[in-house]
Formats: sequence, C-alpha cells, structure tokens
Amino acid sequence: MPAPSIDFWYDFASTYSYVAAMRVTAMAEQAEVAVRWRPFLLGPIFQAQGISNSPFVLFPVKGDYMVRDMQRLCDERGLGFRLPEPFPQHSVLAARVALVGLDDGWGEDFSRALYRIEFEQGMPISEAATIGSVLRGLGKAPDDVMQRSQDDAIKGRLREQTAEAQAKKIFGAPSFTTADGELFWGNDRLEQALAWAKRHAR
Amino acid sequence: MPAPSIDFWYDFASTYSYVAAMRVTAMAEQAEVAVRWRPFLLGPIFQAQGISNSPFVLFPVKGDYMVRDMQRLCDERGLGFRLPEPFPQHSVLAARVALVGLDDGWGEDFSRALYRIEFEQGMPISEAATIGSVLRGLGKAPDDVMQRSQDDAIKGRLREQTAEAQAKKIFGAPSFTTADGELFWGNDRLEQALAWAKRHAR
Repeated sequence: MPAPSIDFWYDFASTYSYVAAMRVTAMAEQAEVAVRWRPFLLGPIFQAQGISNSPFVLFPVKGDYMVRDMQRLCDERGLGFRLPEPFPQHSVLAARVALVGLDDGWGEDFSRALYRIEFEQGMPISEAATIGSVLRGLGKAPDDVMQRSQDDAIKGRLREQTAEAQAKKIFGAPSFTTADGELFWGNDRLEQALAWAKRHAR
Repeated sequence: MPAPSIDFWYDFASTYSYVAAMRVTAMAEQAEVAVRWRPFLLGPIFQAQGISNSPFVLFPVKGDYMVRDMQRLCDERGLGFRLPEPFPQHSVLAARVALVGLDDGWGEDFSRALYRIEFEQGMPISEAATIGSVLRGLGKAPDDVMQRSQDDAIKGRLREQTAEAQAKKIFGAPSFTTADGELFWGNDRLEQALAWAKRHAR
C-alpha cells in the first residue's frame, strides 16, 4: 500500500501560503502523510479568469480583513506578520529558486525562510537581493543558484507546474491536492486534506 | 460581567451560511457564548464593490469548487446538499420573514428549516410558496406572516441591518462579529470567533 500523500501548492506572493508553509511539515508528520511541495504562480491563473490583480487589492475591504485575519492567525501561532510593500510581490524569481532548491534538497527550508523574510520582516522578495540574502543564510552561493534559476529547464518547469495547477482547477493559494483527485483550498483546509489523504490511501 | 456573545450574520442565498446555521447553536452552547442571529443581504454589499453577482457564478472554477467543498462538509456533518436552481436564489423575502420570526421567537427555527429546504432539497426559496410551506411546517399561518413581512418597519429593519453589516466591513457570509469589534468571515471561522468572544468578554 503506498503511503498517503498530498501536494502542497503555494505561491510566494500569498499570505495564507506563508501560514500553511510554516505548519504543513509538522501537521503532516503527525498525520503520517507525505507532502510534496509545489510552488506555482497564481497570476496566470487569475488572468485566465479575467482577474487582473490580487482580490485583496481589487477589493480593499477584503484586503483589510485579510490583514486582520492574518494578524490573528499569526498571533495564535507565535509568528510575526508584516505586509511587504508593494503587495503582492512578484513571486516568479522566488518560485524558480525554490524549484532549484527542491531538486537539491533545500527547497523546503528555502521556502520557509523566504516566507519569513517576506511576511515577518516585510522585505521585498521581488528583489534578487532579498532572495540572495535568504540563500546566504542557508549557506548557498547566491550567484550560482540565481544562474541556475534562469535555466530554460527551470523556467519551463515553473510554467508546467502552473499549467498543472490550472488543470487541477486550482484558483487560489495555498491549495492541497490528493492522489484521488480531491482539491482543498486554503490554509484552513490543511487538516481536512490530511485526513482525506489518510482515509482514502490505497 | 456581561456574558460573552457573538452576532451571526447570514444571507439565505449563501451555501456556507447554511452549514453555519446548522451548527452555530450547539457550538455556541458548548462554548457558553450567546448568539444573536442577524439575517442580512449580501447583494447590496457586493454591488457597492462593483461585484454584479455571486463570485461562484462570476468565476465558474470557484463555483465548482464550492459545490465539492460543500458536499464534503455536509457529508462530514450528516447533512444533505443540493444546489437550488437558479443559484443564487433571491433571499430578500426569506430575510424579511426571518426578521418577523426573530421578533416572535421562532426565527432561528425558521432559518434552519428554510436552509434545509433550500440546500438539502434544492427548493427555490425565492418563491413565496416555498417559504409558505416552511411556515406551515412550523405551525405558523403563512398569509399572516407574509403580510407582516411586507410592513415598512420590517423592510426598513432589513435595510438597516444590511447597512450595519456594511459598516462593520462585512463582505461575505456567514460572518461573525464580537462586541469588541472583531470580524470573522466564513463558516470555518466559527470556532475562532467563539473563542475570541469568550477570551475578550469584559
């Protein structure tokens, strides 16, 4: 019997993906479910639906709520919360670097560290300098990693991963998918996704 | 010390308000928190933001997800789920009748019964005949209640309640508000709202 597993789909621009990234590993270990980290870009998926920006920007009353909701969620978990400016940040470079890291075994650590610098310290992860400082913190050579992140193979992988997310009907981040085709949207669905994966593993 | 309490804001067109309505009373009793039921209309609040219809209709991929998510949530709770056609239903008449019932002490029972006929049986609650059958099931005289629901006082109360929701920055249903001004959006925030109300009661 294969071990139960979920795919964790995240965009580095997404606030709720930050909370999910900080807790998915411990929650999944406790549930004895494996997690595959899948960075993707929400922007092209929004655009395909005619949505030109983050709903939190398009609808300020929803954006204000998200900030308060995030403050409460982060307080409960002992995490800081600070929104970078501008919000949302461009996440394409970060996602490419994460793919390099996932190939090399340090992608999950990089993802968590990048989320912390973005949403605890409010730093602009659109900028290569911010990503470089995260890489240095992990003992990686920024120039080497940055160069690899610009390979056509990595660029193509991010496009394919985003197309796969769209094909799975993902429309927001974070999302969780299971081997039997279920989709769960939102940090607050993590527990349900893990329970589903465990119950329906074959 | 006043007992802790929350306001439960719901729209009869809203699927997730149905799930919340079916569980809020038991959850709140367990938490020893009082609940005030506040029917309101989401339509004018959407329109004020330039949103012309339910996001579940405007964005079909989100609408398809909502149906699957509702099925799973209802399965877990032993509730049926069937979407009425068309979706969403007009909820103004139902909300006015609920206000009459809340004045008379049967508004919560009416709200639950109406949600069940709408989202378990898929009946059109836009139609007076459906609301009449719910009223008869509760031992009420439909003609009398329907006439009262058309009083200017009731119509005005629903407008005021909707304006109050908007002033509280409510942008979706269900929502929960606390005496100290916190807003929680979504059925899946009920537990958090109850815990907050209890912790911050003065």
